[in-house]
Amino acid sequence: MYMKKLFLISVFFTLSVSCLFSQKVMTAADSAAYSVYYWHSKDMFENMPDIKNEIIFFGNSITDFGEWHEFFNNNKCLNRGISGDITDGLLLRLDAITKVKPAKIFILIGINDLSHGKSAEYITANYKLILERIKTESPKTIIYVQSVLPVNPIYEMKSAHTAKTAMVLELNKSLKALAASEGCSYIDLFSVLADGENHLKKEYTLDGLHLSYKGYKVWIETIKPFVK
Amino acid sequence: MYMKKLFLISVFFTLSVSCLFSQKVMTAADSAAYSVYYWHSKDMFENMPDIKNEIIFFGNSITDFGEWHEFFNNNKCLNRGISGDITDGLLLRLDAITKVKPAKIFILIGINDLSHGKSAEYITANYKLILERIKTESPKTIIYVQSVLPVNPIYEMKSAHTAKTAMVLELNKSLKALAASEGCSYIDLFSVLADGENHLKKEYTLDGLHLSYKGYKVWIETIKPFVK
Repeated sequence: MYMKKLFLISVFFTLSVSCLFSQKVMTAADSAAYSVYYWHSKDMFENMPDIKNEIIFFGNSITDFGEWHEFFNNNKCLNRGISGDITDGLLLRLDAITKVKPAKIFILIGINDLSHGKSAEYITANYKLILERIKTESPKTIIYVQSVLPVNPIYEMKSAHTAKTAMVLELNKSLKALAASEGCSYIDLFSVLADGENHLKKEYTLDGLHLSYKGYKVWIETIKPFVK
Repeated sequence: MYMKKLFLISVFFTLSVSCLFSQKVMTAADSAAYSVYYWHSKDMFENMPDIKNEIIFFGNSITDFGEWHEFFNNNKCLNRGISGDITDGLLLRLDAITKVKPAKIFILIGINDLSHGKSAEYITANYKLILERIKTESPKTIIYVQSVLPVNPIYEMKSAHTAKTAMVLELNKSLKALAASEGCSYIDLFSVLADGENHLKKEYTLDGLHLSYKGYKVWIETIKPFVK
């Protein structure tokens, strides 16, 4: 009886894990670290025509979910966010960015790395590689390092991300120093989106991680002087 | 011993289900049918400024993952896709579309409905409501009903979608008849993306459901005469 229950529960568990797995990763072993969505998007970005003087928004879901050309009523604003992306993922698809020699690039990355247990040191080292490659491969591109956004743990979801406030603060300190040492602008989005407890203000989110339009509006207003 | 194993496996299973759950749905009971991403996007689309003569791409992930203003080098092309969306979801957020009185709307929806077990009849009835509401609320908008895309079951993922070839064929037949009876254009994307077995050509996908850039290119070329 126990064996039967155990078997059934195992089957359920295996199915649920397979389900998770099947939604996330490729079958080929060497592609296991990234989602199909990552590979489809990477392929698309590599094949897009060069429209000159691009303003690139480069990052994970928080960038991905914004409608950047609409936000700034500017055809040059291109969305190069991929939901779920990490610093290693940006490095792997950086060629498609630097080869078009964009006018500007706004980077926002790090919260998924933190959710995977990566340290601020690891993320900052990868970030340094990203900045140095952009500077080498596209020297005229103006680089904006955007702080990681605050998160809010009061929601019942995304806890691997939203419990990371202390780490986000540590990472942002490190990214600010990196931006200074690399001669890049640092844009503090954290402060404009956080409440008095360093959490993402509840009026800007439904899950403590991603932004509603009100949250995007604050971001848009903050970077508008740099986009134009 | 068995009890301990059972307990551990149950905890694992519960955690994995919670994980799935937490990625998909809101906590509030009345929002349970849609993802946080749906609500954030709906909110964004409702608050976007009216830029006049919009060309709307309206649908689920397959629309969502395209960079429409880049594809057509046209600032008026707006992405109104939400990954995971269904015909009921489109109906729920249709106000934001019709209130701007767009010039054109390209609709592609249905594969998620099928994956949830909905019938072609159910989907077509919802689709009819969508078309009739657009015609009533924004009579000058030119409506394009795009066929549901072929799928391919050879991949190890998304099987709830990719096993639905027969249903996709049935649904498309029904959508084509609906478009004719409603006086809307019907665009057959299925035929241009399918192989001889009515499956999505392998060169256009990595998961049998979503498109690589090569797949989008075929789509773009097919609808280009209608977008311009």
